[in-house]
Amino acid sequence: MKRKSKSPLSKLGEFGLIDRIQNRQAFASKSVVRGIGDDCAVYRTSPGRFQVITTDALVENVHFIRKSHPPELLGRKTLAVSLSDLAAMGAKPILAVLALGVPRTLDLKFLDRFFAGFHGMCREFSVELAGGDTVRSPKEFWVSLTLVGDVPAKRFFTRSGAKAGHVLMVTGTLGDSALGLKLLSGKTGTPPISQKEKSFLMQRHFDPEPRIDFSRKIAASSIRVSSMIDVSDGLVQDLGHLCHMSGKGADLDGAAVPRSKQFEKVIKNKNLDEFPLCFEGGEDYELLFTTPPEDVKKIITVAKKVGLPVSEIGKITRHPGRIRLLQENESPKHLKPTSGYNHFS
Amino acid sequence: MKRKSKSPLSKLGEFGLIDRIQNRQAFASKSVVRGIGDDCAVYRTSPGRFQVITTDALVENVHFIRKSHPPELLGRKTLAVSLSDLAAMGAKPILAVLALGVPRTLDLKFLDRFFAGFHGMCREFSVELAGGDTVRSPKEFWVSLTLVGDVPAKRFFTRSGAKAGHVLMVTGTLGDSALGLKLLSGKTGTPPISQKEKSFLMQRHFDPEPRIDFSRKIAASSIRVSSMIDVSDGLVQDLGHLCHMSGKGADLDGAAVPRSKQFEKVIKNKNLDEFPLCFEGGEDYELLFTTPPEDVKKIITVAKKVGLPVSEIGKITRHPGRIRLLQENESPKHLKPTSGYNHFS
Repeated sequence: MKRKSKSPLSKLGEFGLIDRIQNRQAFASKSVVRGIGDDCAVYRTSPGRFQVITTDALVENVHFIRKSHPPELLGRKTLAVSLSDLAAMGAKPILAVLALGVPRTLDLKFLDRFFAGFHGMCREFSVELAGGDTVRSPKEFWVSLTLVGDVPAKRFFTRSGAKAGHVLMVTGTLGDSALGLKLLSGKTGTPPISQKEKSFLMQRHFDPEPRIDFSRKIAASSIRVSSMIDVSDGLVQDLGHLCHMSGKGADLDGAAVPRSKQFEKVIKNKNLDEFPLCFEGGEDYELLFTTPPEDVKKIITVAKKVGLPVSEIGKITRHPGRIRLLQENESPKHLKPTSGYNHFS
Repeated sequence: MKRKSKSPLSKLGEFGLIDRIQNRQAFASKSVVRGIGDDCAVYRTSPGRFQVITTDALVENVHFIRKSHPPELLGRKTLAVSLSDLAAMGAKPILAVLALGVPRTLDLKFLDRFFAGFHGMCREFSVELAGGDTVRSPKEFWVSLTLVGDVPAKRFFTRSGAKAGHVLMVTGTLGDSALGLKLLSGKTGTPPISQKEKSFLMQRHFDPEPRIDFSRKIAASSIRVSSMIDVSDGLVQDLGHLCHMSGKGADLDGAAVPRSKQFEKVIKNKNLDEFPLCFEGGEDYELLFTTPPEDVKKIITVAKKVGLPVSEIGKITRHPGRIRLLQENESPKHLKPTSGYNHFS
């Protein structure tokens, strides 16, 4: 079938579609504190008690290639992407329900391996698979996971509280997953890279580690965090969401955006453009957040305790929607958050 | 592609697959009161407070044909099937999250009409669409809905409490949806039926009405209900689940199983076999439940108040797994619950 290059959906894109869904005359519940538009929805379960919920789907040939994605790691990632959403809220995961679209010809071994990975991740993060639905899918294998969490610290993080002058910070390193995916595609040319770097970058792509531990420790502390989001659509795109929801802008310090040694080595060896990978590449599953300058040191202390690097990568400004990249000896460059990945184009 | 008639999945079937998933070494949370195996999972949100959660997926060309299913009604049904699960627990719906698999070429008008129906149903049952994920699906349109509810009456129904001697009851009428689907297939031959009957049966298929109101009134009363399940896989299949989970058997009074006037007329006119439709046909979305004989009258009173018929259709027996159909002038016939629909065969 010929692909329509200008289908209405490809023009609209995922976020346009979400706006369209959201704009309809929908019912608003008194229990729901935050609905569509954050990493999780937040709702009151009894006075002063909150829970969060998030849902994520992964589709064969859209989000993963079944033949090249180890089934155990796909099982882990199914949970990891939603755990990362809970991390962005400071919530503690409790239970999940899973809908599976299963082609009739799917190998049972694939499913067994998928669930070995999935249940392993459940044990690691204390999540019970409490229910599900298994349906036939005519062609592609797909999963749709919903994760429910608790807010034991009675405070949760959102995308919308960033204040001008607050420091922009990020956990871990960015771009590894996107570079891993690029290597997987085989389109990176010569020279070959060492197995050590390749393994690291592949692992970052196939087996992201949700930052639950760090986030929950911050939530349980008195450290002020004015906004938080997980970096799943790429730094520029997700910073765009955060700024949009907060009605602010940001100046990014390009040199401070954290790259792994492995990332830097491969970029240099292969002479690749790092910007689309490190600034726009998706699936980092790191946490991007803002804090008053006085609390930066305390955050670094918590991060050290859980063995996770954090970096200061910029500042929130009072200019709504203006995201600038600052680099030495260059004039500030305006970045457009819409440059993130559009599944429908 | 040639269809394998004996693929491992088709032999295993949906319930075999669920058993396989469930049997793995999974994490069990202290918060979860009931996990996989009931209409909803139940979990504690604070001392004495419970919530329920359920997930259901509908896939194009498996659960519906996009061209023959009015998009508004598909939107309504997306929520209705999960609302029916909540009804089976006696829970009050609160919020939903929705994952959508959208083909690139899908008409935006289809989506708009789908959401007009979906949001209408949300308003009718006071459900907030609190979050979601919109992903591309290479070919089929699919939806995966997760619904969260509250247990305000502090009691919930399960499949597992039926006691020998308790009366088996069911709401509404059975078989209408399956007959509607059969008429839709066009394979019912002559003579034609009146538009009036056709409309009724089609509506029962396309636009089932979840029995939330009845169920919540029962939950809020002191009426004893020892077990409850919604009839989505067909009466015999779902009675089988209820008996299995309760460790009991049942004697069904064949003549007492409620048929609508419209159902009886079409069956008679077209000389159709009613058993596969009324006893084994899926998607009735009525409630099947058990109660001590002393409480039957009270249940009938509640049902009258909400304008919903209820029928006594048999008795629970002490014989685990034995389900018998009793009919006048015939010896009891043993029914096999596994005769329900298998998506993978």
